Amino acid sequence: MKTQVCIIGAGPAGLLLGHMLRAEGVDCVILERRTPDYVLGRIRAGVLEQTTVSLMEQLGLDQRLKAEGLPHDGFNLADGKRLIHIDMARLTGKQVVVYGQTELTRDLMDARRERDLQVIYEAENAALFDVESDQPYVTYLKDGMEYRVDARIIVGCDGFHGPSRQAIPAKVGQEFERAYPFGWLGILADVPPCNHELIYANHAHGFALASMRSQTRSRYYIDVPLTEKLEDWPDGRIWDELAIRLGPEAAAHITRGPSIEKSIAPLRSYVFAPMRHGSLMLCGDSAHIVPPTGAKGLNLAASDVHYAAEALIAFFRGNNTDAISAYSDRALGRVWKSERFSWSLTRLLHRFPADGPFERAMQVAELDYIASSEAAQTSIAENYVGLPV
Amino acid sequence: MKTQVCIIGAGPAGLLLGHMLRAEGVDCVILERRTPDYVLGRIRAGVLEQTTVSLMEQLGLDQRLKAEGLPHDGFNLADGKRLIHIDMARLTGKQVVVYGQTELTRDLMDARRERDLQVIYEAENAALFDVESDQPYVTYLKDGMEYRVDARIIVGCDGFHGPSRQAIPAKVGQEFERAYPFGWLGILADVPPCNHELIYANHAHGFALASMRSQTRSRYYIDVPLTEKLEDWPDGRIWDELAIRLGPEAAAHITRGPSIEKSIAPLRSYVFAPMRHGSLMLCGDSAHIVPPTGAKGLNLAASDVHYAAEALIAFFRGNNTDAISAYSDRALGRVWKSERFSWSLTRLLHRFPADGPFERAMQVAELDYIASSEAAQTSIAENYVGLPV
Repeated sequence: MKTQVCIIGAGPAGLLLGHMLRAEGVDCVILERRTPDYVLGRIRAGVLEQTTVSLMEQLGLDQRLKAEGLPHDGFNLADGKRLIHIDMARLTGKQVVVYGQTELTRDLMDARRERDLQVIYEAENAALFDVESDQPYVTYLKDGMEYRVDARIIVGCDGFHGPSRQAIPAKVGQEFERAYPFGWLGILADVPPCNHELIYANHAHGFALASMRSQTRSRYYIDVPLTEKLEDWPDGRIWDELAIRLGPEAAAHITRGPSIEKSIAPLRSYVFAPMRHGSLMLCGDSAHIVPPTGAKGLNLAASDVHYAAEALIAFFRGNNTDAISAYSDRALGRVWKSERFSWSLTRLLHRFPADGPFERAMQVAELDYIASSEAAQTSIAENYVGLPV
Repeated sequence: MKTQVCIIGAGPAGLLLGHMLRAEGVDCVILERRTPDYVLGRIRAGVLEQTTVSLMEQLGLDQRLKAEGLPHDGFNLADGKRLIHIDMARLTGKQVVVYGQTELTRDLMDARRERDLQVIYEAENAALFDVESDQPYVTYLKDGMEYRVDARIIVGCDGFHGPSRQAIPAKVGQEFERAYPFGWLGILADVPPCNHELIYANHAHGFALASMRSQTRSRYYIDVPLTEKLEDWPDGRIWDELAIRLGPEAAAHITRGPSIEKSIAPLRSYVFAPMRHGSLMLCGDSAHIVPPTGAKGLNLAASDVHYAAEALIAFFRGNNTDAISAYSDRALGRVWKSERFSWSLTRLLHRFPADGPFERAMQVAELDYIASSEAAQTSIAENYVGLPV
């Protein structure tokens, strides 16, 4: 098969990019190693920046997002005693929209036939070849047969563990990485949220997040040492801990219910640079990971896609490689700022085993300062709603 | 001898407090273990917040400060390539004044006779007794004779190593502390400054600060491992390193000259809480230390003095202990915020041996973010000019 752009991975980044390219008449094929149901079953972030919402608008695929998404004007930090309200709408003039990654992915999947976007599911063992040339290609297995896609450009939207980044020789790139000594224990339950906005809490016991998927489905998290086992956390113990960490105001409104999903996810900061090598471009988790504090993962993938789509459309219109060459620097400019925000919010809100009383006092002092300073609140708000693309 | 307030230490904090008490008719005596010349010989910070300037104005001791101090509307951060200007005057409506701690101390010393402020110099081995009672007293040696001062309140302005904090039983207080794995190598020279404002630089080689005492006297610093010896740093090597770290724009204007003072100072964050116990109050370095990044040390002592003077004057007017009881919480509220600012600016600008490429990238990303965000610049500026008292 021959195409202009071969996209590896049909998660939200790959599908967004595919739709943007098709809308401008660029040929593309998406290879996805899983089934559609598997892709939809992954429960991930649910807070969309305006940047991400705009891409869906631009594609005309925002009807359900507009109808079902929950626009949020603010969110809260908490220190175990009080809520510190960050009024994003007043401070920045912008909102975020709570809309599950699963829902956004479904919207993009549902539109693929009508928009003539070809996704090949269960395309296993994708392998990239000749990415340093102008004639790269990808091979994959489907139903036991090997296939080959010849393309002018390959875009890796295949996540942290996918083959795309690995196709870049080690000597070409640099890895920046930080692991965190805790994970997020998440619980999903069909109960109304305890607050109409999100609450990110730093209590002496540790971190907690009260989030939601809808008015009737809540998502909560607490941080736990990575050595913890899920079986040591029956629902009741999680609800008890949430009530403590989120503080009395939130605790009074927590509705408990049986978990419909429960998991412990590790936290990691990771950047691979450059984000382009030869005819291969990387978008989203294939090039960078943020800890989930601040909900930047999906949004950062979306802004990568924005830059990548601009570059590819310019390239296929003018056969000029400048836009492709500039992609990595443009994307990384925003990536580093989001990495910084996610890292600093993670550090502000979690207990680190190596921290002593001074470091704990610095977290409390920073929350106090934020509570007292419009400038500090504005800085947090402008990062949370998304820095300019 | 009997007095209302016995102040231990005649550095800027003790002298400021003494003058403020005398201006309101409160009796006090200051005990200082060194000679006047020794006190004046200590070279320290030189950037005064408006809060500190206001105290001197209030005392009517600001003539020389007004005539010789250099008002600064801004300062610069630098990343080895560019200067990032923080326009304090525009962002906060406030200035800072560059005026050496030595000069401020001299002004306070010069006024002590005319203002009837008694300072006993060379009062050695000061020891505090019965601080938990209403009749505390201090003993000291002078010229081999032991003396005793009976007071209603004792105020410790005797620095980190003085006896006041030690007079509080260990079980009563809590220490918060962080040592930093580097020191500041400072050089003082009679050359014009390289910039009319301060420059705080984070270069891949490490930290550098271009500061000044006057239009003809410059003060520069670089960070060095604590294991470095002064003899390994002849002037030429320091000037070379400054030219690299401060970046090309500043380097082009550096005037080199022989050092008139050179030293390596360790950096430390420290807070002792509470800042009052019984009839003993602590002000300034006796209760807390900040790393010099951000120039908060003297200013924080001045705001402690502001709170302490208010409390003492209210107490001696009304014989009501509430103001004294509230002192620690009021002072610590501001102390913690300044500790946070000094710590975060230190972390942003220095190389930490434990940091890897990711942490270094976070410093660069934070400087980039600051350069692009008015909110981030405002947050830094409002801390630099001094948070409200």
